[in-house]
Amino acid sequence: MSAYTITENEMEAIATGGAFLGTGGGGDPYIGKLMAQSAIAEHGPVTVISPEDVEDDWLCVPVCMMGAPTVMLEKLPNGGEARSALEQLEAFLGRKADALICIEAGGLNSTIPFAVAAATGLPLIDGDGMGRAFPELQMVSFTMQNVAATPMVIADEKGNSSVIKAISNQWTERLARSQTIEMGGSALVALYPMSGAEVKKGILRNTMSLIFEIGKVITGERANNRNPAQALIEKLNGKRLFTGRVVDIERRTEGGFARGTAVLKGMDDDHGRTFRVDFQNEFLIALDEKDQPLALTPDLICALDADGGLPVTTEQLRFGLAITMIGLPCDAQWRSEAGIELVGPAYFGYPQAYTPLEDLPS
Amino acid sequence: MSAYTITENEMEAIATGGAFLGTGGGGDPYIGKLMAQSAIAEHGPVTVISPEDVEDDWLCVPVCMMGAPTVMLEKLPNGGEARSALEQLEAFLGRKADALICIEAGGLNSTIPFAVAAATGLPLIDGDGMGRAFPELQMVSFTMQNVAATPMVIADEKGNSSVIKAISNQWTERLARSQTIEMGGSALVALYPMSGAEVKKGILRNTMSLIFEIGKVITGERANNRNPAQALIEKLNGKRLFTGRVVDIERRTEGGFARGTAVLKGMDDDHGRTFRVDFQNEFLIALDEKDQPLALTPDLICALDADGGLPVTTEQLRFGLAITMIGLPCDAQWRSEAGIELVGPAYFGYPQAYTPLEDLPS
Repeated sequence: MSAYTITENEMEAIATGGAFLGTGGGGDPYIGKLMAQSAIAEHGPVTVISPEDVEDDWLCVPVCMMGAPTVMLEKLPNGGEARSALEQLEAFLGRKADALICIEAGGLNSTIPFAVAAATGLPLIDGDGMGRAFPELQMVSFTMQNVAATPMVIADEKGNSSVIKAISNQWTERLARSQTIEMGGSALVALYPMSGAEVKKGILRNTMSLIFEIGKVITGERANNRNPAQALIEKLNGKRLFTGRVVDIERRTEGGFARGTAVLKGMDDDHGRTFRVDFQNEFLIALDEKDQPLALTPDLICALDADGGLPVTTEQLRFGLAITMIGLPCDAQWRSEAGIELVGPAYFGYPQAYTPLEDLPS
Repeated sequence: MSAYTITENEMEAIATGGAFLGTGGGGDPYIGKLMAQSAIAEHGPVTVISPEDVEDDWLCVPVCMMGAPTVMLEKLPNGGEARSALEQLEAFLGRKADALICIEAGGLNSTIPFAVAAATGLPLIDGDGMGRAFPELQMVSFTMQNVAATPMVIADEKGNSSVIKAISNQWTERLARSQTIEMGGSALVALYPMSGAEVKKGILRNTMSLIFEIGKVITGERANNRNPAQALIEKLNGKRLFTGRVVDIERRTEGGFARGTAVLKGMDDDHGRTFRVDFQNEFLIALDEKDQPLALTPDLICALDADGGLPVTTEQLRFGLAITMIGLPCDAQWRSEAGIELVGPAYFGYPQAYTPLEDLPS
C-alpha cells in the first residue's frame, strides 16, 4: 500500500497509538486530534504516502509543537499557528512545501501534522524522525544524517515569530528553547526543511502506519474488555517491565521541560517490589529497588493504565494510579554510536551505560 | 553644515563623548572605537549626514550591540557580526540599506555604527533614538513614533542568528533578550528598519555631532589640566549632582543586564553627605542620604572621574574611586507622558514620580 487516507474517525486510533509511542511525553495527543478532526471535517481526509513515493527534489517539512507538555495543555493552540509557521518558512525559503513530515511519532506531535496536512492539502509522509517522542529538537534521525534543523520558524499564538539559523542542531535547540520559554512555554515550529532525497535517507519508516495499528489494537482489546498490554508486547516485540501503583510523584517545569520522578509499588507478580521512573517530558529510565535499570533511553518506556488500558502520559501520573510499564526496543539507528551519543543515558546525565532492553534483567 | 566626515583620529573624541552620554552604561566605547578606527583605516572616513538630507523613501537601519556591557567587554566582537546582522536584514527585506542610524548616542553603541558605516560605505545619520543610552531596545523615540523594531536580525560571533518578528517593541525586547542571553550575554543586532520619512519624524537630532563636541571639550579641558565637569555643565545646561568617593559597590548580571548599586561618601563641598546611585546597565537614579532623588530617569546621570576627568562607566566603579556626578536634562520627547511611561522611574520599579532635574533639590 503506497498511499492511503486518514479520515476524521480514524484520527481516534492515530491519537491513541501516538499517546502510547509518546513514551509518557510529547503531550496528550487529544488536542492535536481535535485540531486534525476539525481540519479534516472542513477540508477532507489526509493522504499518507510512502517515503519511496517522494520525489528527490521535493521540499519536505516537519511541523510540530515545541515546549513542555504540561504547558501545552493549558495554552491551547488555535489551529492556525502551525500552518503559519509552515507558511513563514515557505516565504523565507521562497518555495512551497511539497509534503509534510511528522517529527516524532508520539504524543501531540503525532497528530498536529495531520491537522496541517488537512488544512493545506499536502500529503503526509509515512515515517518520522524519532520512532517515538524525545524532549529536544536535535534528537532526530535527520541529525545523524547531517540534515540541518535550520532555517527554522518558531511562532506563538500571539503573533510573534522568529526565523532561526544556527551553526548546529544543538545550537538550534538552545536558541529555540529560550524563545519557547519566552513565548510562554510552548510554541509551534516548522524546521528541518529537507529534500525528498534526504527524507529517504533519514526517515524512520512507516511509523504513521505503526501508530495507527497500535491505536487499533488498543481500541480492539479494550472493546473486548481486555487490557491491551499483552497484545502490544507481542505485536511490538516488547517486554513487560512491571505493573505498579504510583506512591510518590515529584514534578517540576524546569528549563522549558516537564521533569520529574515517580516511585511505584509493585502489584500482581511484582508485589513487594519498588520501581522508579524518571522523565524529561518523556520517560528516560526505569529502575528497580536495587537501582538496576530495567530499560534505558533510547529504548521506549511506555505506560498503560493497568485498569482502563489507555496510554498514560507523565502529566497524568498521580498518586494511586496503577500502570503497566512496557519496554520496546528503539530503532536500530538509535543504537549506533551516534545515536547513543545523541539520546543515550549519558546525554541526560545518567551514569548507567546503555544496554539494550533485551539484555537487561526483568 | 549638512554633511561632514569623521576620520580615524576623530573617533577618539566620538568615543570619549559617547562614554559621557552613555550615562554609565552602554559599554565602554573603547572596543567600538578600535573597530571603527580599523574600518576607517581600511575603507576611508565616515560621512555623517543631516536627517534633513535623507530622502523619504530611503531604507535606514540602526545597527548595534545588545546585552550586558560587562559581558561585551569579555566577549569581543570580531567586527564582522554587526555587518553580518545588517546584511541578513537586507536579505530578509530584499533591499539594500541607504543609510545607517545610531540607536543610542552613548557607550559602545555610539561607536559601532561608525565601524559599520566605514566598512559598508553607507552614510551615518546625525542623530539617534535615545539621546543617551538606555538598557532595553523598546526605549527609543522611534517606539513613540510607532516604528516597529522588527523585522530584526540578531547574530552572535559563532554564526548563529535569528530574524525576529514581534507584535510590539516590548515583545521584541523579550524575545531578543532571551536570544542574547542564550548567545552568551551579548549579540549584534540590526533592527527598526525604517523609511527616511520615519527617520525625520522620530530621530533625536544632531546627537552624533553632540558627542563629538563633548569629546572635544573633555579632551581640551584635560589637555589644559582642568577637570571638564564645569565646562560640560555649562555647555550642556547640566547640574552638578555631587562629588564623592565609592565606599560600597554591589553588582550582578541578572536577566541579561548589569545591575547594581553604588554608595558614595561626599567630598569637597559635599563632605559629610552620603549618596546612592542605582544602575541597570545605565544609571537610573541618584539619591541623597535622606533617599531624596537628585536625578531620575530619563534625565541623564553622567559620571566623570573626579581626578582624571574621563567618563566613568558602571563596570569601572570600584571602591575608592572619586567621581563627579552630573545631571543633564533629557530630550523633551522623554518628558512626554508616552516617554515617561516608556523609561520613567515607575517602569524600572521606583516609587518616586518623575520630576525634572531642574526642579529637584541639590
